[in-house]
Amino acid sequence: MMADKTPKQCPLAVILAAGEGSRLKPACGGSKPIAPLMGLSLGERTLCACAKAGVRRFLIVLGHRGEEVRAHFEEIGLRRGFKVDFKVADDWTLGNGASVLAAADFVGDELFLLTMVDHMVEPGLYRKLLQEPPRSGEICLAVDRNRNGLFDVEDTTKVSLINGHVQAIGKDLKAWDAADTGVFLCTPALFKGIEKARARDRHGLSDGVSELAGNGAVRAVDVTGEAWLDVDDPKALREAERSLIDSLHRGKGKEDGYISIWLNRPISVWISTRLARTRITPDQITVASFLIALVAAGFFAAGGFAAGLVGGILLQAASVLDGCDGEVARLKECGSERGAWLDTILDRYSDLAVSLAITYGYAVAHPGALPWVGGMLAGGGFLLASYVTKEYQLRFGVPYPNDTLNRLKRHDLRVFILFLGALAGAPFAALLFIGALTHLLLAGIILKGWRRTLT
Amino acid sequence: MMADKTPKQCPLAVILAAGEGSRLKPACGGSKPIAPLMGLSLGERTLCACAKAGVRRFLIVLGHRGEEVRAHFEEIGLRRGFKVDFKVADDWTLGNGASVLAAADFVGDELFLLTMVDHMVEPGLYRKLLQEPPRSGEICLAVDRNRNGLFDVEDTTKVSLINGHVQAIGKDLKAWDAADTGVFLCTPALFKGIEKARARDRHGLSDGVSELAGNGAVRAVDVTGEAWLDVDDPKALREAERSLIDSLHRGKGKEDGYISIWLNRPISVWISTRLARTRITPDQITVASFLIALVAAGFFAAGGFAAGLVGGILLQAASVLDGCDGEVARLKECGSERGAWLDTILDRYSDLAVSLAITYGYAVAHPGALPWVGGMLAGGGFLLASYVTKEYQLRFGVPYPNDTLNRLKRHDLRVFILFLGALAGAPFAALLFIGALTHLLLAGIILKGWRRTLT
Repeated sequence: MMADKTPKQCPLAVILAAGEGSRLKPACGGSKPIAPLMGLSLGERTLCACAKAGVRRFLIVLGHRGEEVRAHFEEIGLRRGFKVDFKVADDWTLGNGASVLAAADFVGDELFLLTMVDHMVEPGLYRKLLQEPPRSGEICLAVDRNRNGLFDVEDTTKVSLINGHVQAIGKDLKAWDAADTGVFLCTPALFKGIEKARARDRHGLSDGVSELAGNGAVRAVDVTGEAWLDVDDPKALREAERSLIDSLHRGKGKEDGYISIWLNRPISVWISTRLARTRITPDQITVASFLIALVAAGFFAAGGFAAGLVGGILLQAASVLDGCDGEVARLKECGSERGAWLDTILDRYSDLAVSLAITYGYAVAHPGALPWVGGMLAGGGFLLASYVTKEYQLRFGVPYPNDTLNRLKRHDLRVFILFLGALAGAPFAALLFIGALTHLLLAGIILKGWRRTLT
Repeated sequence: MMADKTPKQCPLAVILAAGEGSRLKPACGGSKPIAPLMGLSLGERTLCACAKAGVRRFLIVLGHRGEEVRAHFEEIGLRRGFKVDFKVADDWTLGNGASVLAAADFVGDELFLLTMVDHMVEPGLYRKLLQEPPRSGEICLAVDRNRNGLFDVEDTTKVSLINGHVQAIGKDLKAWDAADTGVFLCTPALFKGIEKARARDRHGLSDGVSELAGNGAVRAVDVTGEAWLDVDDPKALREAERSLIDSLHRGKGKEDGYISIWLNRPISVWISTRLARTRITPDQITVASFLIALVAAGFFAAGGFAAGLVGGILLQAASVLDGCDGEVARLKECGSERGAWLDTILDRYSDLAVSLAITYGYAVAHPGALPWVGGMLAGGGFLLASYVTKEYQLRFGVPYPNDTLNRLKRHDLRVFILFLGALAGAPFAALLFIGALTHLLLAGIILKGWRRTLT
């Protein structure tokens, strides 16, 4: 069957946040939507993922500890600029079908996304689902066909499919084709299905879906490959934490330099998972890293082995911390282009300060113009290193590839070489070395860019 | 009447290049399509303007000096990667309607753009026309309602309009509403109109259009505001030159700095109009300007008043020449992102070389670390000056506005201050001054950018 391809916007998401989450109680101490996960509640993560898929209007269905949950989401809505409404499901204890019914009046005739507050879902899953709106009288269910990738098979709701439509649904299906991700895109037909089930005294969402499935009105949308996780017990909470940390390691992987990948990132991720639980903002981390680099420059300028050693260690520490701002921003879903802009610019000022300071520290003991010529060329090279590839991206509309030339000229390696130089008592020699290397790499990049664009 | 808004591509343009252009003979010496205009033939300018509007397939209708014109366009097609076909209009002497008919077999059922080889037309005019495809049996004519802006009213073909359709067309209309720009978007209906006129022994394109207009089949598309010029006599040729030069002055106006606008641009445009007539490429000009700046740096490094003076003059000359690459590229329609990339990068290398050289020239006579600290900070500031706004554009997707802060930190002003410093015998003082100013401006830009993006 062909889906109706009429482009429809679905600006409303209904979030089921009524349940008790008894199995998570030991971990979250009470209310599941508020359960903190690396600095953000499960509920806030759900709203952020929806927002990344273009949804900015939410109806939260309340039940267990309703007032507490409402206050939590009201604050999120205000802070993030989402429109958040609430409905109380008085009979939520009957089952999550009953919770869905509480949304019926508010939703009216609208198409709506339906998702569970305790599911951690990648925005791509919502996006795929939103691209396949249900036809009148239908609902669409996002299903995952990767049976081996499921976190907790036993506890997963399964579906059997015929011709892309759900035939049967339940946790105990013997023969099944895919997992129910718990994310739906619905017409109000859903409410009718749930009411039918209720008439038979069955109050689960799956019961309502089952009624519709009998009529061939539940289309399956394949979202295999998009990560999702039902966070309903402490084991799943740990898995969610693990996957967040994993995403930090992977996240900027393609842009990272060698030292970032092998040294800085493992340390910075460890730090970031701690920082994310505090009130420290990414911008504060950016500035702290910059200030530490300036202090490092001060030690370099003082000259001598001991001061240089302290300078080198501080500089390397600043470089590690320099990765934390982005990581914390991603963990707390509060990244901004503005923050990234500041980060990059302060990196260049620290490049200038450090190369000036190392040269000064050396030149005081070795008078003459030559050290300065070398130091100035090295410092200029550091600034140009970032400039040349940025300008490439501006002109050609694509980033310069992260090839070997590019990785060898990055900030992380530069700092690490200076750090090693400081350990060896020769930061200025290290400066000249990495400066000369940088200029060579730049010549290669300019030549390569010039040839590549010969069309 | 509503136009049919079906989005249609019109990849074919028919270019009438059969006429003799007798009135231009004194200026172009023979064949009008080949008449050179600031380094490019009228014909090549027409193809380039079409290409900018998305048309890359051309049918050139030949007549007068057909083989010469064919060879000219074949070369253009090869060089620029356009598909160029030819048809010979054996009876082109009858009138331009006869020339159009020669295209009929080749065109078949296709929609096609029809334009005159000797009209200088802005790409925007073609774009506007292409957005309003004619319905079956119709043709569309681009008309200009600005009667006061016409270059040669007497020689202009005029149209009278009713309900957006052409009612009458001719050079001698008493009452008229708009000028016929000579650019059409046609269905093959045009050929029928011309054949009808031919049956009455009238062979002008206007005669054919007139036949169609009688049936209400000529829709007028308003392109008022887009420049066009019928270059059919020496006076018009001079006007075309004047408007090209004007566009150079205007072209990058919003991006230019103060010294560019008031000093460099007037000189560089004068040079560029001469360079455009040679075989010198924009990239060669870029490299020449860079090399002159390096020689200037050599003089600065030598130290002393005389050498500094020569350095200052050469540096200012390089800065003027630095504007010519882009101007020649625009005059000869051969600009490339690659060339712009190289230009910007070499500007930064020259910034580094010049600040290093001026500092060296001074420091040799005044030993100690302090001059070097100042020089290195100044040079770093020059590199950061461009970096900060480029990075802004990358992050936020819009260029940093060309406000006072931005204009005062630009390359043109920096060079001019160094030039003045060299005249006064104090290039190093000028370097410190403009370096300090640059850092202050950068602080302002960072602050302003940070505040602006607070949303």
